[in-house]
Amino acid sequence: MTILLYDLVGRDTARPFSPHCWKAAMALAHKGLDISTVPTRFLEVPTVEGGVSKLVPVIRDGEKVVADSFAIALYLDEAYPERPTLFSGDGGKAMARFIERWSQLTIHPYVTTAAIMDLHAMQDEANAAYFRQNREQRFGKRLEEVMAARDAGLGAFRASLEPLRSTLAYQPFIGGQSPLFADYIVFGALQWARIASPFRLLDDSDVVAQWFERCLDLHDGLGRKVAAAAAAAA
Amino acid sequence: MTILLYDLVGRDTARPFSPHCWKAAMALAHKGLDISTVPTRFLEVPTVEGGVSKLVPVIRDGEKVVADSFAIALYLDEAYPERPTLFSGDGGKAMARFIERWSQLTIHPYVTTAAIMDLHAMQDEANAAYFRQNREQRFGKRLEEVMAARDAGLGAFRASLEPLRSTLAYQPFIGGQSPLFADYIVFGALQWARIASPFRLLDDSDVVAQWFERCLDLHDGLGRKVAAAAAAAA
Repeated sequence: MTILLYDLVGRDTARPFSPHCWKAAMALAHKGLDISTVPTRFLEVPTVEGGVSKLVPVIRDGEKVVADSFAIALYLDEAYPERPTLFSGDGGKAMARFIERWSQLTIHPYVTTAAIMDLHAMQDEANAAYFRQNREQRFGKRLEEVMAARDAGLGAFRASLEPLRSTLAYQPFIGGQSPLFADYIVFGALQWARIASPFRLLDDSDVVAQWFERCLDLHDGLGRKVAAAAAAAA
Repeated sequence: MTILLYDLVGRDTARPFSPHCWKAAMALAHKGLDISTVPTRFLEVPTVEGGVSKLVPVIRDGEKVVADSFAIALYLDEAYPERPTLFSGDGGKAMARFIERWSQLTIHPYVTTAAIMDLHAMQDEANAAYFRQNREQRFGKRLEEVMAARDAGLGAFRASLEPLRSTLAYQPFIGGQSPLFADYIVFGALQWARIASPFRLLDDSDVVAQWFERCLDLHDGLGRKVAAAAAAAA
């Protein structure tokens, strides 16, 4: 049976960009499950499945509705134990939470800084107005001011990835010899940046960039099916 | 059979202080294995087991000698699979490596800054001279200059623990409902500080401090068998 994935999009429904929805999409592909995506704009999220969550992703699997990417991954591993595991044991479940918190607190703030104007530009008029109002209230400043910290923050951002970079000297994936949900957690954050903004977060020679490329190759190149954001024409 | 643990000490052989040796000691206790410690000073490390490693911990288990705390934990889980697991699956093994890298890159530099003069003061004359020379070469400055950054860095250090703090909102241990080697990795770093220095790294109200107290309670209060460093008498 096909699983529905409510997937955040902007004006272009073929360019889903949410880091959390990408985590869920990769988890579903990892399990080899058939999905059908429901392109969902910011202003439509409150109507998803009767308003089950303030955020996407949300999935519907038959009668079962699950919100939140981590909860979705846990659900999929429990509901489909015969398919490839997303956690590889209880230790992996517990520690994936640490990696989620690290990614959210380390990578997300900088991607927000770097891509916020691009994310705004991806929305249609009504959603752009919502996005600006919501994010300016959250940050207590104009989107343009948020983005002003981008260039000065790049060095510190790259340095903050050192625990991941250092891990990748031991093993090709966060999950070990092959990817687990922990990889998709961090992948989602960088894929969000890749799709929204032409700004280069990582140097090609960075092993983190090389790991990200390996993740883009996974599941028949699922992540590459959406092209990287192009720089605006001169 | 009793396992030998070569454990780093200073003048007082009853105050082992190395973060990495504490990781190994907790891992051995977690497995419920009998151990005998061999108090080892910095200058004695090159003679341990014929010079097998530049660093302790080293363990000898019958004919088997293993160096490096992470390798010791992996060895113990493989050699004693019927005893409580230190990783709880392959995912836990892979992600414990990330937590090790995070701890090493986030906690260790600040503990070094905060406790370096105390660590120096714990050594006898010959080992203190070695420690000063070795560390001053590593850092390219005097120990007193390393420590000068302590007070100014405290706020940033506490903030850097946010991924752990945030994880502990979901679960009592990094390993989930009960501790795994990943907990001992971070515990080792904070225990090193606790034993070496009276400087207070954490506020009592911090959930990280509360988690650390839970870890001190584990295995019949193994971590509490060495008292916290006392402030020098006025």
